[in-house]
Amino acid sequence: MNILITNDDGIYSEGIKYLANTLKDIAKIYVVAPDRERSAIGHAITMHRPIRIQKKDLFISGVNAFSSTGTPADCIKLAIDEFLKIKPDIIISGINIGLNIGTDIIYSGTVAAAIEASVMGVPSIAISVENGIEQNFIYASRTCKKVINGLQAKRIPEEFILNINIPDINRTEIKGTKITQMGIRKYKDNYIKRKDPRGTDYYWLAGQLIEEKNNKNTDVSAIKEGYISVTPITYNLTDINMFHRLQKSDLNN
Amino acid sequence: MNILITNDDGIYSEGIKYLANTLKDIAKIYVVAPDRERSAIGHAITMHRPIRIQKKDLFISGVNAFSSTGTPADCIKLAIDEFLKIKPDIIISGINIGLNIGTDIIYSGTVAAAIEASVMGVPSIAISVENGIEQNFIYASRTCKKVINGLQAKRIPEEFILNINIPDINRTEIKGTKITQMGIRKYKDNYIKRKDPRGTDYYWLAGQLIEEKNNKNTDVSAIKEGYISVTPITYNLTDINMFHRLQKSDLNN
Repeated sequence: MNILITNDDGIYSEGIKYLANTLKDIAKIYVVAPDRERSAIGHAITMHRPIRIQKKDLFISGVNAFSSTGTPADCIKLAIDEFLKIKPDIIISGINIGLNIGTDIIYSGTVAAAIEASVMGVPSIAISVENGIEQNFIYASRTCKKVINGLQAKRIPEEFILNINIPDINRTEIKGTKITQMGIRKYKDNYIKRKDPRGTDYYWLAGQLIEEKNNKNTDVSAIKEGYISVTPITYNLTDINMFHRLQKSDLNN
Repeated sequence: MNILITNDDGIYSEGIKYLANTLKDIAKIYVVAPDRERSAIGHAITMHRPIRIQKKDLFISGVNAFSSTGTPADCIKLAIDEFLKIKPDIIISGINIGLNIGTDIIYSGTVAAAIEASVMGVPSIAISVENGIEQNFIYASRTCKKVINGLQAKRIPEEFILNINIPDINRTEIKGTKITQMGIRKYKDNYIKRKDPRGTDYYWLAGQLIEEKNNKNTDVSAIKEGYISVTPITYNLTDINMFHRLQKSDLNN
């Protein structure tokens, strides 16, 4: 089995090393990740500049690692399409420091890389921990390995994107794994307005999380209740209910 | 009615002017758009730098226009949350030069702005033309106005994102408007590998569109057949079929 790992925190992030170190027991590991932090980059791709790739040594035996000047989505597109010359069996994006749950995932470079994998025809997992400490990284890496082994045994279809999030509680207190839907996370006071030394206004993204009532099925609720959340996601943005509704309207003519 | 217009081609793009000029008949128009081209930026938001806003004159009477140093999604977030002090009734993103159909929409700044509007609780329309010539801009602007008037009359729900695309054919040949689902667009040879003057490799995104068989219901098919395509989309990425399937599996424990 060939596994390609990427992230949005950059190639030297600890999350990548924990993943590579754990998953090398079950697969040949390739890492292609951004050369610097690319959080909140969403699904940006680089069109107007060239992308460069550099071989890096992560000092984990048998792991082939490369940094890229592109975004997380670029890393995947370029690795699969041109650079690696092999099609990975699965792509793992992470381990991201900070949850990717609810509406937040639409801004996430970690999740975008997993989505890009699916667009390129490779199943993928995005994995994030609430808090980037050693015990969480280890637990997340093992969870990832368990899920991959489970999926392999079950011959789950070739097309999937799983968004996995791990709450910051002691691992003995984790209640289990819950299959969830994407929930809602809302913020208030998103921007702080300030004046620069020359007296000109500027705005800085801040934002305070508002506790939103979330359906019990959601990732947001599962994390709050102490579960590992596993959300199957898709890159097909069609609003299927609205599609059926509008089909019957006179907008369709 | 208050309408907020944005785009990903930048504030001086013709598409914005045609839209503003047509829609000012039915609403008070605000424009908040990037100060430069931000194509393929996806749903990136700016976290680590401040955002600045500048008043601009588009020379269209009654239109309040501002440029922003942020991405299209930033423009929407900041305008609604902090800057405009009013909540628009609808947000229009466009008119984009170039289709936003099929899988391509996940990279689109135009579509990301419309999605951000929905996250912020405002219904939205993303609108794109296959070819940025005057007659298409005028036709797209009128289509947009007609859709808004139609939606207003029908009291269509407050939450929607419509992705509208207009084919590059004579307007008398347009067969009608079709409600569609997001289709598939695939590319091959995504990257060109070259050597720079110092002999180092670099990669440049290129990509040749492959004709994919698309279901008749898709945006890709509708455009090919000469229809205006209207795709209702959502920011909820849950793969609901996979959710039900995995819920019954032993991943859920």
